[in-house]
Amino acid sequence: MSDTTTATIARLSTSEAAFHQRLNALLDWEGVSDKAVQARVEEILADVKQRGDQAVIEATNRFDRLSVESMAQLRLMPEQLKKAYDGLPAEQRDALAMAAERIKRYHERQKPTSWQYEEADGTVLGQKVTPLDRAGIYVPGGKAAYPSSVLMNAIPARVAGVREIVMVVPTPDGVLNDLVLAAAHLAGVDYVFTIGGAQAVAALAYGTQSVSRVDKIVGPGNIYVATAKRAVFGQVGIDMIAGPSEIMVVSDGQTDPDWIAMDLFSQAEHDEDAQAILVSWDAAHLDAVAASIERLLPTLEREKIARASLNRRGALILCTDQAEAVEMINRIAPEHLELSVAEPEAWLDDIRHAGAIFMGRHTSEALGDYCAGPNHVLPTSGTARFSSPLGVYDFQKRSSIIHCSPEGASELGKVASVLARGEYLTAHARSAEYRVRD
Amino acid sequence: MSDTTTATIARLSTSEAAFHQRLNALLDWEGVSDKAVQARVEEILADVKQRGDQAVIEATNRFDRLSVESMAQLRLMPEQLKKAYDGLPAEQRDALAMAAERIKRYHERQKPTSWQYEEADGTVLGQKVTPLDRAGIYVPGGKAAYPSSVLMNAIPARVAGVREIVMVVPTPDGVLNDLVLAAAHLAGVDYVFTIGGAQAVAALAYGTQSVSRVDKIVGPGNIYVATAKRAVFGQVGIDMIAGPSEIMVVSDGQTDPDWIAMDLFSQAEHDEDAQAILVSWDAAHLDAVAASIERLLPTLEREKIARASLNRRGALILCTDQAEAVEMINRIAPEHLELSVAEPEAWLDDIRHAGAIFMGRHTSEALGDYCAGPNHVLPTSGTARFSSPLGVYDFQKRSSIIHCSPEGASELGKVASVLARGEYLTAHARSAEYRVRD
Repeated sequence: MSDTTTATIARLSTSEAAFHQRLNALLDWEGVSDKAVQARVEEILADVKQRGDQAVIEATNRFDRLSVESMAQLRLMPEQLKKAYDGLPAEQRDALAMAAERIKRYHERQKPTSWQYEEADGTVLGQKVTPLDRAGIYVPGGKAAYPSSVLMNAIPARVAGVREIVMVVPTPDGVLNDLVLAAAHLAGVDYVFTIGGAQAVAALAYGTQSVSRVDKIVGPGNIYVATAKRAVFGQVGIDMIAGPSEIMVVSDGQTDPDWIAMDLFSQAEHDEDAQAILVSWDAAHLDAVAASIERLLPTLEREKIARASLNRRGALILCTDQAEAVEMINRIAPEHLELSVAEPEAWLDDIRHAGAIFMGRHTSEALGDYCAGPNHVLPTSGTARFSSPLGVYDFQKRSSIIHCSPEGASELGKVASVLARGEYLTAHARSAEYRVRD
Repeated sequence: MSDTTTATIARLSTSEAAFHQRLNALLDWEGVSDKAVQARVEEILADVKQRGDQAVIEATNRFDRLSVESMAQLRLMPEQLKKAYDGLPAEQRDALAMAAERIKRYHERQKPTSWQYEEADGTVLGQKVTPLDRAGIYVPGGKAAYPSSVLMNAIPARVAGVREIVMVVPTPDGVLNDLVLAAAHLAGVDYVFTIGGAQAVAALAYGTQSVSRVDKIVGPGNIYVATAKRAVFGQVGIDMIAGPSEIMVVSDGQTDPDWIAMDLFSQAEHDEDAQAILVSWDAAHLDAVAASIERLLPTLEREKIARASLNRRGALILCTDQAEAVEMINRIAPEHLELSVAEPEAWLDDIRHAGAIFMGRHTSEALGDYCAGPNHVLPTSGTARFSSPLGVYDFQKRSSIIHCSPEGASELGKVASVLARGEYLTAHARSAEYRVRD
């Protein structure tokens, strides 16, 4: 079973000499776009910035193989979204509605509140939280058009109090996805344009005659979208540059190997660059999961993708104990972490970096992807070291409040004056000194 | 006084036909680096990534006109920082300590807390907040080496619970700034390297033999630093791409014109691209401020810079009433907003976008720059539409917690199964279905 020459998925052990080297090679991922992509994206951005709608129309016709003549043909009206929702089979409509409700409920807990406090001399300091005016949501088209992503991106924006949500979703060859439209209806998206790629990012960032400029662009996309988002960052806010999806499962050996194999598949079936890693200190359990993988893989609809992903970037890793498993979690900072162990709570204090933590044998990642409530837009490629799941906080920002009493301004003015003069910024000093009382 | 041909600062009125066009031209700012800068930065990044310390040493010798041979010569030890602090004149030391204490106190209020809730079936959902392991702080060198910036960047990281704070500050020609070192000591910075530019950003982002890789890089810098930060974004977190500093003062006409002139100077003296704008509905007051500007400008130490800045990017704007002033605030989304009016609280609800709001005639921006408590690292160039002041939240991130009870997993599994099948992700569906009870 552990013959690595024929197996679908690599076997590693923390005790082998080359372990860290092999692990690093597996984790290595650079989603950088080459110069050709960058040049092409820059061209499109500049064109849309200058020519607006017309540039968007031409790029859309070219890349999505359409032949529209106006932006009106690239806009979906609210009635169309509602019709898509009403037309769904009841089972799908109910599932979507339940997911939306749970996502909303969870995200309501994330709302930060404004606060302020008063000091003894009457000076008031605080922080005011306000929503963005307009958010742009990028939804990938084609094979990766996911209604769940519409909910996960739009609902936090709505909960945050964003005034207008603009969604873009490319429709290559004009193919619409009813579930995506239904999700947009359910999530309360205000405007939907069937555009994608760098041209859609440019339209959202700069605005055109038909598309209002937004304040932030969120949502995943291909390398053109990612490159465009990086380029417009600063002009607008962006969420993150998403890499391929990944899961890390830590098992104590007591979970059904078939369950774990399927959990790994649920990442691997996303795309060939997706990463699925299992860590356990139980060697026999790893053998059993390897056997489950071989047995179940041929039963998958997306066998080919899953197999390629496991081959290329998957691993079953034998470690010595729980402490080493924790070390590996913090080293990898996984997007999705399944703690398939008896007492997951006991692990929590030691886990510093992970996008989402799925605790216990019953909490499969798929529940989080769709309907548990927390967001499924999560930091990938180790960026959980410094980033968070998409949340309400991504659609709000803060303003500092400083209201000095005359007495407070006088006292603070003396301090500011000393420090400003230390920095040779004497207009700063004099501005503060005007408020100092004799 | 309002003769625009000879005056230092432009006069605009919202009632003139070309007002929006003129305002847009004034606000227009694009800090994009040209291709030459980008190519040079990419070269440095690649070099440091590959050769580590040696590349950093060579670049530092070249750009900062040094001739060091090892990284040890580019590191400042804790004793040196402490010595700088102890050696300060008492007045400066006390002012710095008071500022640090107030900044700390304010930022302690920003700490988000982890939370969780349990559902009826025993499922637990939550969010866990953790600090970054390592933060990198970029402090500009030379003329813009500001001790206050060290406090403003390092203290929130410390309050957040960051384990290691690494500061980089270039020392062109080997000149050290004692106040900067003292501030690093006071703020509890762990490591200081006297390096700057793209090479410092690369060292922080990738790590070298001597510099540990950090998880996020914050702090302002020149165009090379900004370009490098944009390039490494994703590899590490970054704060924002800062533009030139700006102030917008709104006056009801009752504030001493000299005070307002000096407040405008306190921005304008930063650099020639800084922006200072005054808005009022009192035309005589604008005339009076214009007169104060002409009279006081020659008394400034940094007259030349302030004059250039006011000339190039400053404006006194006449509006019709308070409502129009509010509109302009939200249009401009200023980094610093002074509400030099009788009842600033009454304005607050209507203000949607501003980095920091200085309320009342006594609250000069300079107080916030040094010692009021809130952060002075603020979103510039209209990015307050979507970004916040630097804060404790920039040095922490969140992990979602999902712990389904067997019953919860069974119920959610049914919903996830329907939605996953709707997306043709059948391994997702089957992974959820395994946990569904019959």
